[in-house]
Amino acid sequence: MPISTEEFYSILASRMQASSIREILKIIQSSKVISLAGGMPDPATFPATELKMVTQKVLTENNAQALQYSSTEGLKQLREFLLDYLLPENRKETLENIIICSGSQQGLDLVGKVLLDPGDIVIVELPSYLAALNAFHSYGGETVGIPMDDEGMKMGCLRETLNQLSKDGKKVKFIYTISNFQNPAGVTLSLVRRKELLVIAREFNLFILEDNPYEKIRFEGEAIPSIYSLDEDDRVISLGTFSKILCPGLRMAWIIGNKKIIEKIVIMKQATDLCSPILNQLIVNKYCRNYDLDKNIASNVEIYRQKKDVMLKALNKYFPAEATWTKPEGGFFVFATLPEYIDTDEMFMDSIKAEVAYVSGSPFFANGKGKNTMRLSFCYPSKEDIEEGIRRLGGVIKDRIRK
Amino acid sequence: MPISTEEFYSILASRMQASSIREILKIIQSSKVISLAGGMPDPATFPATELKMVTQKVLTENNAQALQYSSTEGLKQLREFLLDYLLPENRKETLENIIICSGSQQGLDLVGKVLLDPGDIVIVELPSYLAALNAFHSYGGETVGIPMDDEGMKMGCLRETLNQLSKDGKKVKFIYTISNFQNPAGVTLSLVRRKELLVIAREFNLFILEDNPYEKIRFEGEAIPSIYSLDEDDRVISLGTFSKILCPGLRMAWIIGNKKIIEKIVIMKQATDLCSPILNQLIVNKYCRNYDLDKNIASNVEIYRQKKDVMLKALNKYFPAEATWTKPEGGFFVFATLPEYIDTDEMFMDSIKAEVAYVSGSPFFANGKGKNTMRLSFCYPSKEDIEEGIRRLGGVIKDRIRK
Repeated sequence: MPISTEEFYSILASRMQASSIREILKIIQSSKVISLAGGMPDPATFPATELKMVTQKVLTENNAQALQYSSTEGLKQLREFLLDYLLPENRKETLENIIICSGSQQGLDLVGKVLLDPGDIVIVELPSYLAALNAFHSYGGETVGIPMDDEGMKMGCLRETLNQLSKDGKKVKFIYTISNFQNPAGVTLSLVRRKELLVIAREFNLFILEDNPYEKIRFEGEAIPSIYSLDEDDRVISLGTFSKILCPGLRMAWIIGNKKIIEKIVIMKQATDLCSPILNQLIVNKYCRNYDLDKNIASNVEIYRQKKDVMLKALNKYFPAEATWTKPEGGFFVFATLPEYIDTDEMFMDSIKAEVAYVSGSPFFANGKGKNTMRLSFCYPSKEDIEEGIRRLGGVIKDRIRK
Repeated sequence: MPISTEEFYSILASRMQASSIREILKIIQSSKVISLAGGMPDPATFPATELKMVTQKVLTENNAQALQYSSTEGLKQLREFLLDYLLPENRKETLENIIICSGSQQGLDLVGKVLLDPGDIVIVELPSYLAALNAFHSYGGETVGIPMDDEGMKMGCLRETLNQLSKDGKKVKFIYTISNFQNPAGVTLSLVRRKELLVIAREFNLFILEDNPYEKIRFEGEAIPSIYSLDEDDRVISLGTFSKILCPGLRMAWIIGNKKIIEKIVIMKQATDLCSPILNQLIVNKYCRNYDLDKNIASNVEIYRQKKDVMLKALNKYFPAEATWTKPEGGFFVFATLPEYIDTDEMFMDSIKAEVAYVSGSPFFANGKGKNTMRLSFCYPSKEDIEEGIRRLGGVIKDRIRK
């Protein structure tokens, strides 16, 4: 008689369900649907020829190393490159402050694993990155959302919420923020708020987890110092990734922060997967040493800027006057808000019939709100598909507008 | 004021400590010490030229795919290859029974994550693979060890232990076994015991986690059917890896088993790292399709057989009569037992002074025993180093033999 599996799942595993984005992507793969759903980079931004050349070099010059086990912390030369690339010359950080990980999703997972007991609170933005919420939930972390405006998380609400949680005897471990061109809302945390966030984190004695995948994909305006760079207490853990500035297929990312936290993350990563693939680390390292990463990023930003412009123009043309949306200064996403009586989850199958897909907003909201919102990605589809996709979607929405 | 980290760690993370193997390997890297410690394959066994060629092809023909995000389940073609390669023609398994993961360590981690609540019991062999114990402990699993003899886990003890655990109200989730050329003890579970294990697992309604990295590295004797292949209840989850038959640097492994468990593992892996690197999957798939994996394995087995012979000969020559050791029919390790009054942990620094390293046995024992045992690897060092390393180690041990 076959074994019955249900009774065997851990409590936390039995709570975890398949993500809606994922199920959507499965539907889309083999159809004519134009997808404004996924957050995949445009393959035109991958320096494929250069990556092929450095890979060939690595497999010629370092094959015994490239095919062998390696250290859990990650390739020393790549960590050195990152310290030089990311930080000012007079930095305090050493190799002990950084670990290479398999995508920033693994960074989210490892930080959750090191810091969260079931019932611990993580403060998140409303809305926030779905897969981050999942990573925290997978360790029993509970996510409490703070509303945002154009400058990011509202600091008054944050303080109020932290006071209330403290009164309720809840243990808050860290504040999770995607500081630049937030996924999904596209908002960037202002400099004033970054400083205030650090003051509040100090006051309540919390870590801050700054997830920063889109920082370099800026179309306009001036770069704002990262929260990590403003921190004087060693309380900011920073996640970065090559997925959006080089390519995601190598799964190469990093965590920088407090030495003791990194040391514990190393121990936990060892139990998780021993080490990230060294071939991939050698490829990225050689690419970064032999080519100009910033030049590659600059030409990619131009590609995404044009796509963003096409999407904003199409939204103006095809979306009803009742809808509003963000005008992102960077990143991959536009976040749209429809009239309250339109449920984007419920509208989804109609939009698939019209051969266009998006991600409905509610799964991104830790408080279950946002039913009338949606995330629209301009990163992957062609300009023609963006225009046509928004046209189709505009039609679906207009059919639901009450006169 | 810098943040104080200790109070932030999760309960499970605060229990996890750096592994002694890992610390040993750090010491060794930059010294003249001959290491009989690590389990790294011999780089001479990597088909480096062929891997370079297929990588070049992948990055020429499939670069947009190879550098992009991919599915959590893993590359369909590679999963199809594995189903064909591993299973009989009339198999019941489909693509839903298999997931690609980042090394079998990730397999251990994901199975732990899906099945273990804190306090749940995992039955393990005495001794067992250290990093597996760590993976289970990282989810709060408690490991209970069963003694082995030449045929593997003693079934009488297993039944007795399960009865006792049941009386004590303990929840046992699964039995973990490395069925072939066990790490560290080198023992292979006999066919009779495999069948008995399945009967007991059915009787007590448990999963079996069969970890099978060394199966193909057999020097002599006939292959024994895997526990997985003998299972009729869908209760065996099988871990396999390319690390020992191709190379570990790509971190490519797989989990095959019960569809519902695999489905839950997919959900948990998504929260863990989204997907394993697709470049690595395409490389392995193309290698397996264009070259003869079994032929590569056969020539590698010859390399390891010779090294094993050198080690056994050296042990006979240089170890004192008071020591005993296994004569492995396959795998990477010899497990040695010294007189009870010799503590291999305590002896370790003397052996480093004599410029030879091993792994002391006690960390492998879930019950804290095995203080007079040691694991000796013949996989990585050259034949000359194996001979010289055993000669040095023999000297260190002989100095401690009581006359």
